[in-house]
Amino acid sequence: MTESADAVTERPFEHDVSGPPPLPPEPIAEVEEGRRLTPAEEARTLLAATNIATLGTLSSDGYPWASLVAFGSFDDGSPVLCISTLAEHRRNLEADDRASLMIAAPDVSRDPLAGGRVSLAGRARKAVGDEAARARDAHLSAVPQAAAYADFGDFAFWILGVERVRWVGGYGRMDTVDADEYAAAEADPVVNRAGFAIRHLNDDHPDALLAMARALGGHPDATAASCTGADRYGLDLRVETPRGTAPARVNYAEPISEPDGMRSATVELARRSRSLLERRD
Amino acid sequence: MTESADAVTERPFEHDVSGPPPLPPEPIAEVEEGRRLTPAEEARTLLAATNIATLGTLSSDGYPWASLVAFGSFDDGSPVLCISTLAEHRRNLEADDRASLMIAAPDVSRDPLAGGRVSLAGRARKAVGDEAARARDAHLSAVPQAAAYADFGDFAFWILGVERVRWVGGYGRMDTVDADEYAAAEADPVVNRAGFAIRHLNDDHPDALLAMARALGGHPDATAASCTGADRYGLDLRVETPRGTAPARVNYAEPISEPDGMRSATVELARRSRSLLERRD
Repeated sequence: MTESADAVTERPFEHDVSGPPPLPPEPIAEVEEGRRLTPAEEARTLLAATNIATLGTLSSDGYPWASLVAFGSFDDGSPVLCISTLAEHRRNLEADDRASLMIAAPDVSRDPLAGGRVSLAGRARKAVGDEAARARDAHLSAVPQAAAYADFGDFAFWILGVERVRWVGGYGRMDTVDADEYAAAEADPVVNRAGFAIRHLNDDHPDALLAMARALGGHPDATAASCTGADRYGLDLRVETPRGTAPARVNYAEPISEPDGMRSATVELARRSRSLLERRD
Repeated sequence: MTESADAVTERPFEHDVSGPPPLPPEPIAEVEEGRRLTPAEEARTLLAATNIATLGTLSSDGYPWASLVAFGSFDDGSPVLCISTLAEHRRNLEADDRASLMIAAPDVSRDPLAGGRVSLAGRARKAVGDEAARARDAHLSAVPQAAAYADFGDFAFWILGVERVRWVGGYGRMDTVDADEYAAAEADPVVNRAGFAIRHLNDDHPDALLAMARALGGHPDATAASCTGADRYGLDLRVETPRGTAPARVNYAEPISEPDGMRSATVELARRSRSLLERRD
């Protein structure tokens, strides 16, 4: 999709390790080809998940300088900062506009490197004229606290023009993203609010998840299934089989376009799975 | 203390804003001079609070590059990374060893810029020989998950030799820290585990906090007090008075040296406060 020539993959089996690592059991039934979030959509979804990031700038001595910033963003995914002339990174940007911004998923799991993150690189510009007003709106809608200082004379809005995007989804999932594709992509409306729905599925509907795994997930011999993730296109499952524990993916009939669309999409998925299993019997 | 010539302060009253901001009421009784964490101790305490950071490196095109890393640290506060040749930041460091690491307090409040963070800059080196074994221990004790990949042939331990330290404690609290002072400082044994104790003080001992505010905090007319922070040297209070709401600080008789020392130190502080108030009556 967006796998480009300079993309570096970090799949475990490409590490320099002797002997093949153990692999989960393969599906034993046909699995419908389904959509997943593209790396560009993953990147945009990370931006929508938080308002805090680390900015990389160039110090006057040539060292890279990493510092904490709050951010909002334009509709094309350009990050919008609100920074004071008193801050070191602001003085760095005034002298050299090259910058990078790293945004990590805010839900810190016990293994910090298992979470998603994206690095954006490009050139930063101070917003002036009409763009300054748009930048103010974009920043304050993501960082309402900035209203307390945004109009101080030493603060200004700065925009990062994104030239390069590198997304890492955790161990073994990473890709370089084309800047135009990044600008055109949408944040997923489901991912950042799916926690409650996933717990509800696991606590109250294990039979529905098992039906999905058997009917659509490629594991008709599954004995249990739980949901490990959800996005607008479908659900990620962990499936127990007599052959071992396997990951599986099941897809909604249609992508979800609204934040509250997960319930009806999941009900449809469960009904379709049960209907398929009845026909098989 | 460590306020150096190039330190940039960001106190609100130094922002370019017309008219003085409102100030909290001043103490109306003498307040004993007490110790606070130095900026060097604050920085070391942040390092001890988490194992996740953002690394700034230099890309081959000269741009700064910000990316997520896990870290441990040596006793002198030098961060220890475990990174693969497959990672972009590793290739950056092989070509140019200048680097920066930003570590933010892991408890994300609703206002992300109100939390503490520290930026370290220096040169990174690949650990070899005896240092590699020490680096392995330091990294794995902070990032036990790294045991799953640390011994793959493409991974190595890298150490950031800290040359420059910039600490920001939130709005209006920041300082540049001398590298030697940073190396010699200790992490506070209390700060990173004080959440439960602070809730306990506020829920179950408001009278003790009020006695502290009246006897030692400089506000003998206080009507209520709550605890907003704790470290090895004392407690931060928020005090209600007929003159308004004021911050106050009360100090332990002796600094706490063990993580479990807060209970007895706080009991002593409450007893001393009540005894002082009785003598005043």
